[in-house]
Amino acid sequence: MKTAVHRPGNLQEVEKEVLHGNVVVLAQAITLCESQKPSDQRKSDDLLQKLLPHTGRSLRIGITGAPGVGKSTFIEVFGNYLTALQKRIAVLAIDPSSEKTKGSILGDKTRMEELAKDPLAFIRPTATGHTLGGVADKTREAMLLCEAAGFEIILVETVGVGQSETAVRNMVDFFLLLQLAGAGDELQGIKKGIMEMADGIVITKADGENEKRAKQAQTEYQQALHLFQPSESGWRPRVLTTSALERKGVDEVWKLIEAFHLFSLKTNFFQRNRAQQNLHWFRASVEQWFKTKILNSKGASRKFKSFEKKVVEGKIAPSKAAREIVNSLLKK
Amino acid sequence: MKTAVHRPGNLQEVEKEVLHGNVVVLAQAITLCESQKPSDQRKSDDLLQKLLPHTGRSLRIGITGAPGVGKSTFIEVFGNYLTALQKRIAVLAIDPSSEKTKGSILGDKTRMEELAKDPLAFIRPTATGHTLGGVADKTREAMLLCEAAGFEIILVETVGVGQSETAVRNMVDFFLLLQLAGAGDELQGIKKGIMEMADGIVITKADGENEKRAKQAQTEYQQALHLFQPSESGWRPRVLTTSALERKGVDEVWKLIEAFHLFSLKTNFFQRNRAQQNLHWFRASVEQWFKTKILNSKGASRKFKSFEKKVVEGKIAPSKAAREIVNSLLKK
Repeated sequence: MKTAVHRPGNLQEVEKEVLHGNVVVLAQAITLCESQKPSDQRKSDDLLQKLLPHTGRSLRIGITGAPGVGKSTFIEVFGNYLTALQKRIAVLAIDPSSEKTKGSILGDKTRMEELAKDPLAFIRPTATGHTLGGVADKTREAMLLCEAAGFEIILVETVGVGQSETAVRNMVDFFLLLQLAGAGDELQGIKKGIMEMADGIVITKADGENEKRAKQAQTEYQQALHLFQPSESGWRPRVLTTSALERKGVDEVWKLIEAFHLFSLKTNFFQRNRAQQNLHWFRASVEQWFKTKILNSKGASRKFKSFEKKVVEGKIAPSKAAREIVNSLLKK
Repeated sequence: MKTAVHRPGNLQEVEKEVLHGNVVVLAQAITLCESQKPSDQRKSDDLLQKLLPHTGRSLRIGITGAPGVGKSTFIEVFGNYLTALQKRIAVLAIDPSSEKTKGSILGDKTRMEELAKDPLAFIRPTATGHTLGGVADKTREAMLLCEAAGFEIILVETVGVGQSETAVRNMVDFFLLLQLAGAGDELQGIKKGIMEMADGIVITKADGENEKRAKQAQTEYQQALHLFQPSESGWRPRVLTTSALERKGVDEVWKLIEAFHLFSLKTNFFQRNRAQQNLHWFRASVEQWFKTKILNSKGASRKFKSFEKKVVEGKIAPSKAAREIVNSLLKK
């Protein structure tokens, strides 16, 4: 794998290098996608468009769980397991809280020391400081770039705090929820909505004294899942236990995901779901981009501000102001 | 109060009749605002703009609580209490679930039999079948119309199911949460987020055997509120108990709301909050209206559909498609 330093600018070369799996250029291409500069966005649009025929061939796995559940550790062990099978994996992380706690993501990532050194693995936190919608947008683009670079499995990691789960669920094929076995009240503190999104649940840290409790939690979760309506895919989510310490259970997780993959390809859900996700992405991007355009255009943002002033002063009804500004911005 | 049947069409007359407090014309004007027809929307925009100088002089009170807590009963008793003080009150109801259970709102409203007959009261459910954002928009406009018609207190009722609370919180001055005293687990089942939005909490059905439990719940809630950060207004929310059956506690609720009103006028929070709400309304309306325009314009919606097709077929990256369509719709 080449790792030569690349000077960005020549898109054709970037395209070629990404397709050759050059991770340094891949990282630069992701940075280009994350840029807010209009000229960079035009470039990254062109790049993505060219690479599009080479995307989509990975298995996209979302991984979520509350802080402390052992996400980084799980991903490191799971990642090592996959690279041992000679699979190329990319890890992308979304952390909506990182805007405040700058550096926390990188702090987390460096914990995946072994995986980070693995030539078959690529680890990349999502650029922070944007809205969640924006972050999700960029993660999707990063995912496509990783696919073009030949990564077969994309792990999208998210902190289990609510909003970001839906965004990640909407961009992956399989959604995995990590849970800790608690003391009896297994179902406390986890949102029903997140459980409903999961294709699989893993009880982590099932080792030593904790193993019995983990097995019990497994039974309880499996029973709880029966209460939910069957998901759109027709897939029945399953609950597993793992121990990163004893390196146990990771093979079963992979088998579960493979079973889902096969199942969803057979039922055609895999393809339908991806098409649906693209549609969703498109619609969300339209709103996002409309806002960006208003805020970035001098004329529009001046107009916007003068309307805001009138609204605050009570000189115009907000609904009327909204209709007027949108009408004035749109072509006839 | 006049109740002559009015033929809509002449906006000047509608304006005059609304200002005179003609509730039949007021109801027609609200229907006009709720219409999706572009010509009606232009008319209602004009009407609102003309009436705007006569709006804003009411006290806006949001009332929420889970189904079964006794919202309708509370509003009836509270409403009668206020009209007995010679106050003119309007009750507006938002029920996002009503799209499915058509008629449920009206069913509810007819339960407020006494209040409905009161000449000082005006009861109006919000038209259903739209998105929540749209409904909220219409409720705001209905609120302005009621103010122009001379109603001094607007009660905005919402079912305690989550999303609609934020919408209502964003359009009222005082937000009241109704809660039932449970059996020991007072804080179960209520979202912390909704409690944080409340300026006051009322434990309902504090009568007979339930009174003791209600008093206990009152203490527990009051303690729980101390755990929250002080709200932006600087106001310390309080917990009260009421009994609609024994008509107890309603005067205290009104005193609490009056105290808040005075407090927030003094600190200028009242005025700042309203300006902020108008700004919020404006921004939300811009998005809403942009979507409506795209979906209603033949050319734009054709373009939108052709892009959607390409997106589903994987011929264009969704983010690029989004930027292209927005760029093509906006003026240079």
